[in-house]
Amino acid sequence: MSWIDDPQFRADAPFGPQTLPYGVIPAGIAVRVGDQALPLRPLADHFGPRLGELVAADSLDPLLAAGRPVWSELRARVVELATAVSAPRGASLVGLDDAVLPFRVADYVDFYSSRHHAENVGRIFRPDGDPLLPNWTHIPIGYHGRAGTVVVSGTDVVRPSGQRKTPEGPVFGPSQRLDIEAEVGFVCGGPVRSRLTPSQAADHVFGVALVNDWSARDIQAWEYVPLGPFLGKSFATSVAAWITPLEAFAVARVAPPHGDVLPYLVEEKPWGLDLALEVEWNGVRVSRPPFREMFFSFAQQLAHLSSNGATVRPGDLIASGTVSGPSRDERGSFLELSWGGTEPIALDGVERTFLEDGDTVRITATAPGEDGSLVGLAEVVGTVRPVDER
Amino acid sequence: MSWIDDPQFRADAPFGPQTLPYGVIPAGIAVRVGDQALPLRPLADHFGPRLGELVAADSLDPLLAAGRPVWSELRARVVELATAVSAPRGASLVGLDDAVLPFRVADYVDFYSSRHHAENVGRIFRPDGDPLLPNWTHIPIGYHGRAGTVVVSGTDVVRPSGQRKTPEGPVFGPSQRLDIEAEVGFVCGGPVRSRLTPSQAADHVFGVALVNDWSARDIQAWEYVPLGPFLGKSFATSVAAWITPLEAFAVARVAPPHGDVLPYLVEEKPWGLDLALEVEWNGVRVSRPPFREMFFSFAQQLAHLSSNGATVRPGDLIASGTVSGPSRDERGSFLELSWGGTEPIALDGVERTFLEDGDTVRITATAPGEDGSLVGLAEVVGTVRPVDER
Repeated sequence: MSWIDDPQFRADAPFGPQTLPYGVIPAGIAVRVGDQALPLRPLADHFGPRLGELVAADSLDPLLAAGRPVWSELRARVVELATAVSAPRGASLVGLDDAVLPFRVADYVDFYSSRHHAENVGRIFRPDGDPLLPNWTHIPIGYHGRAGTVVVSGTDVVRPSGQRKTPEGPVFGPSQRLDIEAEVGFVCGGPVRSRLTPSQAADHVFGVALVNDWSARDIQAWEYVPLGPFLGKSFATSVAAWITPLEAFAVARVAPPHGDVLPYLVEEKPWGLDLALEVEWNGVRVSRPPFREMFFSFAQQLAHLSSNGATVRPGDLIASGTVSGPSRDERGSFLELSWGGTEPIALDGVERTFLEDGDTVRITATAPGEDGSLVGLAEVVGTVRPVDER
Repeated sequence: MSWIDDPQFRADAPFGPQTLPYGVIPAGIAVRVGDQALPLRPLADHFGPRLGELVAADSLDPLLAAGRPVWSELRARVVELATAVSAPRGASLVGLDDAVLPFRVADYVDFYSSRHHAENVGRIFRPDGDPLLPNWTHIPIGYHGRAGTVVVSGTDVVRPSGQRKTPEGPVFGPSQRLDIEAEVGFVCGGPVRSRLTPSQAADHVFGVALVNDWSARDIQAWEYVPLGPFLGKSFATSVAAWITPLEAFAVARVAPPHGDVLPYLVEEKPWGLDLALEVEWNGVRVSRPPFREMFFSFAQQLAHLSSNGATVRPGDLIASGTVSGPSRDERGSFLELSWGGTEPIALDGVERTFLEDGDTVRITATAPGEDGSLVGLAEVVGTVRPVDER
């Protein structure tokens, strides 16, 4: 029995000793234990000088820069301290509230690696064409998003304004088709490197955090040709406050469903992950997107991203792309769930398509852990606020 | 007569007292005076405590955060010191070499606001369609680029590898169509804000620096649908080492040639700029792109970028898009100059289309200054190196 007195700190709950995600609260860096947080700064002496300095920092940035061997050493020590029979000197538990964005986002890249999502979008927007474009099965398609507007879970999302097309010409105003994208994010660290193999790429991933890539479909539809999404996405991207270390997913690995790929994308041991996502809209579960269906793994995405010589830096955040499965109740966006707004979703008896002001969306996920345990990804949640009048 | 003994420090040369761009050299922050640099750290006492701290910093980051009133105060004092009859105590001149990237790039956004460029690209890639897409005259089209691979002028550019399409299917290897894009960059600062009017946006621009947005056309052509350019651009973007303050361009302002725009893009006083660019390929001038032809100004670009609620942060770098004029010898990319590789350019008697290893490209620009003076933008230069074998 651990000294930690929290009913959710157990192997069959998402945030037991098998998970131990990192975050930053007003008390500094902490690990989540059940529904509480264990601040690490008061425990710095238990980690020795090098690790102690990293856990006493104000953000995860120095830890992200430290790289895989340090991450492994730290995790082993954290597990020891969290599972000790008696409380380590200085240890105390605090609430999970007021967590902040735990690292400075360097570059943010959003991929598009769910075949079901890409095909659904293709069918909705190009009903007469091939749902999948010719490059899609060869390339982990992606684009750069706005790092400066990545916000921590719990931050309200103000409805974006923008240009949208109408029969009378373009108009400017609040988006009328505000949507979500349920995604899985990967937080990078270690030495600055380029041209990574998939195996090397995985060693540059510190941990995993859920992402909601809020999307204004009307703005996006008018702006995105030929240079891709811009203001339809850049107003806000929410990321979970707690980052689950990649090491927690050792038994969740699965093979992505792609066929032959070019040699630079071949994985020695595949890095698909068996994560089960859930999307709640105003408290009603509307979707269960299966991450194991993703066509390319995050390791392949990072290998691709760095294949041209581009460097991967600590703080780079890559998101998987919207996670959608083959069934209707596995789709990771309201665009797909409502089939472009033509098939409303029943939400507590009311028919809905896109987001209204006041709506709250919450995404969670779990994965299989060692010895039948459950590994959790912390929620990413946000509420839509009306745009302020200027 | 100023105390500065440099034959190029004069009103009819690009880097006289009317220009005074900022950069960072091993001695710290400096201003360029003719073909030399004046380090400011040894002069910190002349600036008073607040400005003194800013000029003694290791980078321009604190200065960028300080905002317009501080920038104006600092510039006035720098002009005084640089034009004094006798040398201020502590002043000495050093070489321009070894300048580093003077600020941390927050988000990098690349626009596409030259109508001639967009039409040329449209004619080359979609010869049977309308050269301009329907959204282009309404929206300053742009996309996010990779901030982590913005490099300072003088940095070698390693030829990127990537996927390109062949009749036998996609292959991976070094780009065979490596190109330049001659652009003008705007470095942002001041308080973090969103929903800026064009006038407010201009107050968030610290200064102007030339940009070469190196582009691998074969990688770009295969990857860019539907999410825009990614690895075709992300390997390197070069920016000049010296940033000319926006205030130096007061008399270079012109009206952009667009017609009606939506109200959020209307400028009180237009921020088009009469910059004359020059592109040299291995020492041969191949183009003179006219920036005054740009359809949207940087102020409109920033107003658009922030119109959805996205914030503008200190260190944000926005690039204008390739600058091309109506004439063949005014095109800002080799894609256009060689018309997609079909009309080779004579370069010292040899016919050339795209970049070969060892090639050097240098871009410079000047603008009209006060009282008939000449305001310069420092060169952005880079040499192509072969890709290293793994």
